[in-house]
Amino acid sequence: MSDLEPGAAPAIDLREAMRTARSLRRFRPDPVSDEVLARCLEAATWAPSGSNAQSWKFLVLRSPEVRAVLGPAFREGWDWVRTIYGQSAEPPPADDTSRQARLTRTMLHLVDNFENVPVYVLFCYRLTGFVPEFIEGGSIFPAMQNFLLAARAEGLGTVPSTWFTFAEDKLRSIIGIPDDWRIAALVAAGWPVGRHGPVRRRPLHTVTALDTWDNPFLTP
Amino acid sequence: MSDLEPGAAPAIDLREAMRTARSLRRFRPDPVSDEVLARCLEAATWAPSGSNAQSWKFLVLRSPEVRAVLGPAFREGWDWVRTIYGQSAEPPPADDTSRQARLTRTMLHLVDNFENVPVYVLFCYRLTGFVPEFIEGGSIFPAMQNFLLAARAEGLGTVPSTWFTFAEDKLRSIIGIPDDWRIAALVAAGWPVGRHGPVRRRPLHTVTALDTWDNPFLTP
Repeated sequence: MSDLEPGAAPAIDLREAMRTARSLRRFRPDPVSDEVLARCLEAATWAPSGSNAQSWKFLVLRSPEVRAVLGPAFREGWDWVRTIYGQSAEPPPADDTSRQARLTRTMLHLVDNFENVPVYVLFCYRLTGFVPEFIEGGSIFPAMQNFLLAARAEGLGTVPSTWFTFAEDKLRSIIGIPDDWRIAALVAAGWPVGRHGPVRRRPLHTVTALDTWDNPFLTP
Repeated sequence: MSDLEPGAAPAIDLREAMRTARSLRRFRPDPVSDEVLARCLEAATWAPSGSNAQSWKFLVLRSPEVRAVLGPAFREGWDWVRTIYGQSAEPPPADDTSRQARLTRTMLHLVDNFENVPVYVLFCYRLTGFVPEFIEGGSIFPAMQNFLLAARAEGLGTVPSTWFTFAEDKLRSIIGIPDDWRIAALVAAGWPVGRHGPVRRRPLHTVTALDTWDNPFLTP
């Protein structure tokens, strides 16, 4: 398709989009069109970056070769996290309807089906070397966030993951990522089975302060 | 003030906010209320983070002690960047009305007045240690981006900066930042003299690819 076809991005209030852009992990098999992805990626380009350098590249991934690598990587990532949190490899009992059990079942579904995700988007970044690596993230993760919010507006489900790290060498080789570029994040996307809804976060007064570390900015 | 007072956040379409959330560097002296900041910070908490760990803390900074450190740090940062880009220490000639000259004048204004910025917000993060530092940024910079977008909705001008690094030790000491926390970004904010407007970015087709690095996702 050609660049910047205007298309018809759905309207949504900014705060409503941010407040309900929770990760969704179950996708219908329907494909995600280039038009929708282009609108979300265009939003990614609107993010700020240090000196407006835009030292980024966004890859849309759908090939069987990439899928064959990402599936096992994601399962390895899951096993690793599961072990850290001391979680069983078995699915929760059918009669457990707790929030945690439902989240685990949804995650297991994604783990079992990761190579069948409709589309992945890889956020790549070339380090400038001007600031420590952690701080360079300020020039790529805002673009990922814009993408996630734009996807929310489209009704598209997304979930970012760091588990590409379990297959990073293979992935770099298949895609042909130059040595001086880093992978920042992998986002899985598709038309969701579930619905977007309010995110769950700690209260604001517990994560804010005024002037000094322990001086409250807000009262409970 | 108490937590989560609803207030009246202005409505704005998501894409309109993202498309026009450019950095603004000239601020009116008027204070920025706690209510407005709380709404922007609440939006920050809605951002995703790995395992929803929310390993973040947001500091509102207005104290004279912090200002006294940030002003010189910002001027040091400017000198450093100016040297890298081989730019003169003199302001552009008055008859130069090019975009670059205007940007430089605006930057010089901020450099000269950095301790008088109405308010700063410091985004702090405790590393989890589960992934490389660069990738951990995925759990804090989306929060910064949500803050910037929410500020755009309020009509508040913002500009993120990495130049806190030039006074990081002093800043940590004044604020009392624990050793295991990192500073991710400093955002200067205030009611702007100028207006928000479209960001300038490279065309989408130049920063996207499909499946392999050099395979175009979009055509020009």
